[in-house]
Amino acid sequence: MQTNGTSDPSADGGLPSWNDGAVKRAIVNFVTRAASEGDKDFVLPADRIAVFDNDGTLWAEQPMYCQLAFALDRVKALTPERPEWKTTEPFASLLQGDLQGALAGGGPAVAQIAAATHAGMTTEDFETIARDWITTAKHPKTGRLYSEMVYQPMLELLDYLRAGGFRTFIFSGGGAEFMRVFAEGIYGIPPEQVIGSTGKLRFEMRDNKPVLVKLPEVDFIDDKAGKPVGIHKHIGRRPILAFGNSDGDLQMLQWTAAGSGARFMGLVHHTDADREWAYDRASHIGTLDTALDEANAKGWAVVDMKRDWKNVFPFETRPGAG
Amino acid sequence: MQTNGTSDPSADGGLPSWNDGAVKRAIVNFVTRAASEGDKDFVLPADRIAVFDNDGTLWAEQPMYCQLAFALDRVKALTPERPEWKTTEPFASLLQGDLQGALAGGGPAVAQIAAATHAGMTTEDFETIARDWITTAKHPKTGRLYSEMVYQPMLELLDYLRAGGFRTFIFSGGGAEFMRVFAEGIYGIPPEQVIGSTGKLRFEMRDNKPVLVKLPEVDFIDDKAGKPVGIHKHIGRRPILAFGNSDGDLQMLQWTAAGSGARFMGLVHHTDADREWAYDRASHIGTLDTALDEANAKGWAVVDMKRDWKNVFPFETRPGAG
Repeated sequence: MQTNGTSDPSADGGLPSWNDGAVKRAIVNFVTRAASEGDKDFVLPADRIAVFDNDGTLWAEQPMYCQLAFALDRVKALTPERPEWKTTEPFASLLQGDLQGALAGGGPAVAQIAAATHAGMTTEDFETIARDWITTAKHPKTGRLYSEMVYQPMLELLDYLRAGGFRTFIFSGGGAEFMRVFAEGIYGIPPEQVIGSTGKLRFEMRDNKPVLVKLPEVDFIDDKAGKPVGIHKHIGRRPILAFGNSDGDLQMLQWTAAGSGARFMGLVHHTDADREWAYDRASHIGTLDTALDEANAKGWAVVDMKRDWKNVFPFETRPGAG
Repeated sequence: MQTNGTSDPSADGGLPSWNDGAVKRAIVNFVTRAASEGDKDFVLPADRIAVFDNDGTLWAEQPMYCQLAFALDRVKALTPERPEWKTTEPFASLLQGDLQGALAGGGPAVAQIAAATHAGMTTEDFETIARDWITTAKHPKTGRLYSEMVYQPMLELLDYLRAGGFRTFIFSGGGAEFMRVFAEGIYGIPPEQVIGSTGKLRFEMRDNKPVLVKLPEVDFIDDKAGKPVGIHKHIGRRPILAFGNSDGDLQMLQWTAAGSGARFMGLVHHTDADREWAYDRASHIGTLDTALDEANAKGWAVVDMKRDWKNVFPFETRPGAG
């Protein structure tokens, strides 16, 4: 497993990009106790399960989800084969650069875009397309590769947890197959620990070779109440640590909190308009409203990005970069 | 992780219950090469994925699937609360001991029995019920606990693979939640590596506590073409070793075989009417027909239980038992 831009875990307790404060101290305290045999909060290694949301928790989700940018690029690339899209919504608006108009149709419009760009090919073909894209696609605001738009403090947290014998998982509303293309390289999280939304698949033989064909039908949405369902289906144990950033993560945090013994529930609160973005209750992307209230009421950790993070992105920490 | 009745892996190459023969030699050769750095068939540890069917591959499935016996016992236990079952099929036949009559309705009858016995409760309540049952339920022919009806040579194979750096997974048509109750104890396979058929779940809050309620609707059938789909969804990598015993495992074997590099595909052929059962093409349980033809045509390993296994069950190897 390889991680990108993480620091020597021995330096500064492994969390050098975290300012000293309540959240960092709570993390260190929790992990140290979970890994200390004899401590009343010691946890057997097999149960040291940490689950993370992806968009807005491990990497930036503004001004649009990375996977939506991927879908838009796919629509453009496929339009020569699908000329009817030029006059059919939601594709027509998309192709004119009117994202808001394209998404005005809500869920059904998103489903149409997803089906048009994520289905009708084998899983292997999709993997190749997604891998090629993520290798070169650049973030519209920073001009950085999307794979560089990860949060340095969260990379350190993932490493710190693994050094403490935790296994780290992603449970994201994003597509499982899309994330698996990059999650091992940028987060050190192997494919079997990356769970997300999925479409239905059909097994078939083509030229005596078995393939899995991606169908334009939703199989599972790993968001909101789907997250604890996904956790139960994929792990079958309750996590002891969960980190999210939006109301879509609330049920995952509640499910984690409801187990017995010590627990850690965390939210990334986007409070830094200078280095990243500042948004919460009124945002359409990554709405953080009821989950913030519940975190405050229950004493869950809330990362104030501006105050708690010394650096946000890995490129800020590299001399001469940024 | 704990295994039941396995031998010291250092003795006899870790496979003391396997007679020396083509299958044993092929296993040892494959595992040794996969784990030998520098060998042309060396495989990185992360890719040493071995997948197993459960019923008829790791433990006995005759005269009926263990989980069906569980469902029958649940029908009997629940009948006082559901007196209408005494006059409603498929329950009426079941309660009169007429299994064949009860299952005459085919898939819909099985679905009705499954829904009546596996849904309408929380995942935690189901786990308690299943755990209590498997702790005491006895096999109708041998009078042994079901958990003792495991194949000693396969327990040794699981241990042998893990000693070679493999991760072992179950992909079974049986229920994931049912198997997870016992798979760690008897096979040393943790819940997150036990994949099976599932029903839909609903997240809800009960007395301020989140629960997952088991619904009477099929979510996923992990059998036949569902097995490679399940493998892709849960692991996202292609296995390099697969073991089954019936036509329900054919697509899993084909999917495994179609990867690049060295592969191992195996079938358990039930040929031992004295120590276990003898059945294949004409059997209703564990039908082995087209998969046997394909295994023979492609040179996959076919275990002849009578010839290849020194012992079948763990209790045969214990002095004074059996």
